[in-house]
Amino acid sequence: MDQERIRKYAKLAVCTGVNVQPGQTVMIFVSPEQHEFAAMVAEECYLAGAGKVMMEWTFQPVTKMAYQYETVESLGEVPEWLEAKHRWMAEELPCHIHILSDDPDGLAGVDPEKMQQAMVKKNRVLKKYRDARENRDQWTIIAVPSPSWAKKVYPNETEEAAQAKLWEDIFSCVHIEKDKDPVDAWNRHNHQFLERCRKLNEYGFEYLEYKNQLGTDFRVWLIPGAVWMGGGEYTMGGTYYNPNMPTEEIFTTPASGRAEGKVVSSKPLSYQGMLIEDFWVEFKEGKAVSWSARCGEEVLGKIITMDEGSCCLGEVALVPESSPVSQTGHMFYETLFDENASCHLALGAGFSNVLPNYDKMTAEEWKEAGINDSLIHVDFMIGTPDMNIQGVTSDGKRVDIFVNGEWAEEFRSQSDN
Amino acid sequence: MDQERIRKYAKLAVCTGVNVQPGQTVMIFVSPEQHEFAAMVAEECYLAGAGKVMMEWTFQPVTKMAYQYETVESLGEVPEWLEAKHRWMAEELPCHIHILSDDPDGLAGVDPEKMQQAMVKKNRVLKKYRDARENRDQWTIIAVPSPSWAKKVYPNETEEAAQAKLWEDIFSCVHIEKDKDPVDAWNRHNHQFLERCRKLNEYGFEYLEYKNQLGTDFRVWLIPGAVWMGGGEYTMGGTYYNPNMPTEEIFTTPASGRAEGKVVSSKPLSYQGMLIEDFWVEFKEGKAVSWSARCGEEVLGKIITMDEGSCCLGEVALVPESSPVSQTGHMFYETLFDENASCHLALGAGFSNVLPNYDKMTAEEWKEAGINDSLIHVDFMIGTPDMNIQGVTSDGKRVDIFVNGEWAEEFRSQSDN
Repeated sequence: MDQERIRKYAKLAVCTGVNVQPGQTVMIFVSPEQHEFAAMVAEECYLAGAGKVMMEWTFQPVTKMAYQYETVESLGEVPEWLEAKHRWMAEELPCHIHILSDDPDGLAGVDPEKMQQAMVKKNRVLKKYRDARENRDQWTIIAVPSPSWAKKVYPNETEEAAQAKLWEDIFSCVHIEKDKDPVDAWNRHNHQFLERCRKLNEYGFEYLEYKNQLGTDFRVWLIPGAVWMGGGEYTMGGTYYNPNMPTEEIFTTPASGRAEGKVVSSKPLSYQGMLIEDFWVEFKEGKAVSWSARCGEEVLGKIITMDEGSCCLGEVALVPESSPVSQTGHMFYETLFDENASCHLALGAGFSNVLPNYDKMTAEEWKEAGINDSLIHVDFMIGTPDMNIQGVTSDGKRVDIFVNGEWAEEFRSQSDN
Repeated sequence: MDQERIRKYAKLAVCTGVNVQPGQTVMIFVSPEQHEFAAMVAEECYLAGAGKVMMEWTFQPVTKMAYQYETVESLGEVPEWLEAKHRWMAEELPCHIHILSDDPDGLAGVDPEKMQQAMVKKNRVLKKYRDARENRDQWTIIAVPSPSWAKKVYPNETEEAAQAKLWEDIFSCVHIEKDKDPVDAWNRHNHQFLERCRKLNEYGFEYLEYKNQLGTDFRVWLIPGAVWMGGGEYTMGGTYYNPNMPTEEIFTTPASGRAEGKVVSSKPLSYQGMLIEDFWVEFKEGKAVSWSARCGEEVLGKIITMDEGSCCLGEVALVPESSPVSQTGHMFYETLFDENASCHLALGAGFSNVLPNYDKMTAEEWKEAGINDSLIHVDFMIGTPDMNIQGVTSDGKRVDIFVNGEWAEEFRSQSDN
């Protein structure tokens, strides 16, 4: 592969993605299959001035064995040292770089019940440390092709050709081109997003209404005063970072407990190495009350019933059909990409930083304001080329936001035309 | 490569090496380059009944970067969670499987002073937990070829051919043959070793005297009552395991502070990714007082001066020139193999379990009995085809132990003839 562009990508993740500051510690979460790329990212961290780099390797085939052979007791166990490590992370706030590459259905065959029980058990101890990091640490998620993921996306190609094609897709989605500085492209991209958010925020919509031929007929209420966001974000300490690469979504957190109607999935959902396909979810008073899936229905059920908040929505995100990710013309079977090809919702935890003054509120106050709380946050795609979305203001005014899967005229940026 | 024999090797490490007992936790220390073999070993652990398998990945190129870019402060730092993990290891006693594969000079260029300082700093906190595990946990060390290690051993071959040849060497050294059960071979091997140890122990030598044409002229005193060991060992809890695969040495711990004369290296020493070649060390009253090396002299000096005990000897080991490792006809640049091709000594910590009743003694009493203490244990090779070693008993009787690099007649086993 093109080592020059791969190196650019590693540097982009470090500098524009997580934006490592001199002296900071960086944790890199990656599969051992990707050791060469991981070493490149580590080197870029040091070159950017990182004080320490910690590698956190996880190998999906071994994870699968653990789910097969270990007891729920063992899987969900949090020894004191592991809790101490998470406490340390919440105190020291190292940067997190997540490098995804796993086989989208590499955990197929694992008992979803067992997985859910283990996760719940583990999170009973660890969630508070994750919550304590929220809005305070810099993190970014990127992806690199493994043979198995590439073959899932390009089943008719050889492993090598599939990986090469997937690399090209990734480069085009994250704005990496030969002889061009991707940092410029990201700055322009983020600027457009700010403009679009500003327009949406000015309307202060009370609720959104979704309709398409697939069967989605759905209304979701927004939190008064909550803002639309997209692209880069700031930590409470004021460091700018880009949590997702690519990112094409404008999103907010809807009011927990206020959504009505049915949404129909438009793309498969790959959840922790298991695929859920052709599914719908019906909401009443903000809660998922019924659902069905052609494939992976049990896994979908486990997601929705994971905890008290996992049946409610934590995110409403708008992505046009013309996004660069969508334009590759295929599924990635990886949320990081697929969520950027399509309008989507997320079950589970909302983002508190959509609230003005979120940094002066307690977690309890976030919840009271309508931000859903859960140990999961699972995006699922509902956008289609015929999706229409209208925003309705408190005085009953209807505004087209999406028309036939694209931003309505007034929300388009210069470069969209 | 021959997947059947590789699978046998993985199973051998788990069953005969570390001898995993039902419900035990196993930690596998391995490079991410070896993720496929590592997953195979993990699976064999589960099949042997392990309750939990933990992967502990370390990637040498990233370790090298850390030594280059981080401060000694950062390198030697032990955060609370890491100390808690070592405490947990000392309490829970998981099995350790170490899978070596690193480039023998992959850390060339690292400042030995910096490495030493970092290690001393780290060990000030962690050594007590390692000491607490001594003689109590099951562990084994095996090795698999990485491209860089294989090319070091076979510089004139392609990467692929070099790895294939190194695999064949490993198989021959660890008694893995097609259509044969290696467990039988290991049982026979261990039985021979017991016989040889019994004969040596009956003599109760006061000291050994080494001489060869290379310039070694050396006497080392043994601890009265200490035994010669070799092959498998028992934990205090009574579980049998094989700490090294391959193993061809019969060894004991000499009396700390009682060695005189000069020893000349017969093979290069690969220490933590750096090579030391053509060196000698002179001992007075058990301490290394002068030394010199054609290559890597600074590293040798750092080893000898690491701590109070690093200038004294912790091991005396006897290996004939005809050992299967030696018969491959080449250096491995890896102590696990090279120490099994040649008589050697080790600087640093001795093995307390050579003492009768060691399990009823305190660490202080081990030291008083003559077992050297140090945070290092570094083997270096002195055996040659003309090496003669005599044992001298307290009543002045001289017994040939090695004649021209081979066990003297009375110590040979049936199968040697």
